Amino acid sequence: MTRPATAQRTLDVALGDRSYPIHIGAGLLSDPQALVPYLAGKQVMVVTNETIAPLYLETLCATLPDEFDVRTVILPDGEQYKSIEQVGRIWDALLEAGFNRRCTLVALGGGVIGDMVGYAAASYQRGVAFIQVPTTLLSQVDSSVGGKTGVNHPLGKNMIGAFWQPRAVLIDIATLATLPGRELSAGLAEVIKYGLIRDEAFLSWLEENMAALRQISPEAVIEAIASSCQIKADIVADDETEQGVRALLNLGHTFGHAIEAHQGYGNWLHGEAVGAGMAMAATLSERLGFISTADLKRAQAVIESAGLPLAAPAGMGSNDFLVRMRLDKKNVDARLRLVLLDAIGDACIDDTTSEALLCELIDGYPRA
Amino acid sequence: MTRPATAQRTLDVALGDRSYPIHIGAGLLSDPQALVPYLAGKQVMVVTNETIAPLYLETLCATLPDEFDVRTVILPDGEQYKSIEQVGRIWDALLEAGFNRRCTLVALGGGVIGDMVGYAAASYQRGVAFIQVPTTLLSQVDSSVGGKTGVNHPLGKNMIGAFWQPRAVLIDIATLATLPGRELSAGLAEVIKYGLIRDEAFLSWLEENMAALRQISPEAVIEAIASSCQIKADIVADDETEQGVRALLNLGHTFGHAIEAHQGYGNWLHGEAVGAGMAMAATLSERLGFISTADLKRAQAVIESAGLPLAAPAGMGSNDFLVRMRLDKKNVDARLRLVLLDAIGDACIDDTTSEALLCELIDGYPRA
Repeated sequence: MTRPATAQRTLDVALGDRSYPIHIGAGLLSDPQALVPYLAGKQVMVVTNETIAPLYLETLCATLPDEFDVRTVILPDGEQYKSIEQVGRIWDALLEAGFNRRCTLVALGGGVIGDMVGYAAASYQRGVAFIQVPTTLLSQVDSSVGGKTGVNHPLGKNMIGAFWQPRAVLIDIATLATLPGRELSAGLAEVIKYGLIRDEAFLSWLEENMAALRQISPEAVIEAIASSCQIKADIVADDETEQGVRALLNLGHTFGHAIEAHQGYGNWLHGEAVGAGMAMAATLSERLGFISTADLKRAQAVIESAGLPLAAPAGMGSNDFLVRMRLDKKNVDARLRLVLLDAIGDACIDDTTSEALLCELIDGYPRA
Repeated sequence: MTRPATAQRTLDVALGDRSYPIHIGAGLLSDPQALVPYLAGKQVMVVTNETIAPLYLETLCATLPDEFDVRTVILPDGEQYKSIEQVGRIWDALLEAGFNRRCTLVALGGGVIGDMVGYAAASYQRGVAFIQVPTTLLSQVDSSVGGKTGVNHPLGKNMIGAFWQPRAVLIDIATLATLPGRELSAGLAEVIKYGLIRDEAFLSWLEENMAALRQISPEAVIEAIASSCQIKADIVADDETEQGVRALLNLGHTFGHAIEAHQGYGNWLHGEAVGAGMAMAATLSERLGFISTADLKRAQAVIESAGLPLAAPAGMGSNDFLVRMRLDKKNVDARLRLVLLDAIGDACIDDTTSEALLCELIDGYPRA
């Protein structure tokens, strides 16, 4: 499969009157033309975290002409701060500034910032505009598309939130230069997921280009982000509020969310948990005869080549998984629904797997 | 104007795939056929307050067959508890029960309960089903239609929330028998509002039937509720997310919200503040030459006949009004937008009134 090398790409996420563009390139953060066309009015609240603020906040704010009333909120960094209390700090800042429903929120940061700012925007005065400026690979390929926003609750991840679409997403791949390698790998987990669930040719491309991606080769990175966003956009366009096919995007996430919740948010990175979760889902798929052993090994190899774990966390028993998996949003009434593989490049929803079989798989699964 | 006497009425709020029915009658709360068709799955969370729980909670729960997993949350009663913290208690209960996204929330109570439960439903797992069972006249004619949900913030009323439509609204007018007279009058403020902004014939009918309404004559009450909901439904269908004509529903509310916030939520009832606010808006409309002095007197008379205040609160100065009116959601950037009357039965949006003129009006306006 050949894919053209490109310096900048724009995709459109087609959602009727909630459609928006995703711009992907190097240097967008410092481009005065990038952000301004998407601002709803003159009031702009840029929200970021303590890690990203010293790197990019001044650069981004400097692109905004003087006529804009620009305020900033800097939240603590980390999944453990993805809470309604932190969203409350954004609301406080908006009200203290006297911002009205024509204001725009800008999310500058990773998925945690994007999800919280999106939810803050969805709920402020019953909904205001927001723009995503994702600075991690994970958020660039995942939360850029789909309009999922929200926060964690002590009893479950992303349990409180809204579907709320941004006006635009600006992906500046220059921000990946400051991203720790472990977080780059975590982002690659979602990239691999798109290949596994929908596009065998893209998975082959990833197998060939994994080294270039881990070295942040701009052409490879732009290609991987654009392909990932396009696959997700196609799925989301079919199913904006996750009634059907969109659930396939949860490959590895049912296991992964249980791992994150059990380990305490922020100890395993989301992408790491998804990597191990995809390996678990692939193993179950092979056990059920949905895929061959060769396909399982191929899935495991690509996950491992991205620097991701295959094993589950030490000390996490089958009951630790099940108690959290039963809370999964895909479940209907009391029945577990899992995303499994029918082939490399083709995922399916399974609600026939018994808890007993699942326990057996988990009990026998390797531990880190 | 003649309107037919009816024992039960059903209206449809037409919002495409978010359309829903409003059933209005006596005894719906104890009818097993009323609620069940609108439940999304088997998990049901009924949320009410400490005042309503002893009156109607058991009756409502008893209508649900054993196959449903029915849980309850009882919140404190009052506008001062319309907060994100109380919504958090609903989320806690949902997660502790292990409820998934096929659950249904039932709001049993007045507007505060309806708004909080609606917002809890809008945000739980990014949106679950809810049903409104409004027990006050105000909530029956106001929050039954429109999908506005949310909570107050210390810096402003209804500043946090979402547009989220119920699956159905069940209005049992038998609940008005336990409603304090002061709250009945507060509900009549919104009923009068519909006549003032949109329907001169309905306002005439109200002038003739005010005594019957204050005595809770079933036929008059059903007629007033049905007409009010129909007027609101027509407006909302034109403008679901309040970009244009829907703002007319805010007649009296810009002044009214300032009164409520200044007095402390819960001291003036919402409808009382709206009554005085409509009288203030009518007075400004006359001052600007939009309506005649006779029309002003007619508006004041019908408000007063419902047992509502015409005067503003003692000790509330023009700056106390303005500081809060500047935060109003209708404003665009820094410009105040007011709903005024062009005639009895015809409202308009005005953004030409200067703060100086407004101050003069408020300073010279009667105080209670």
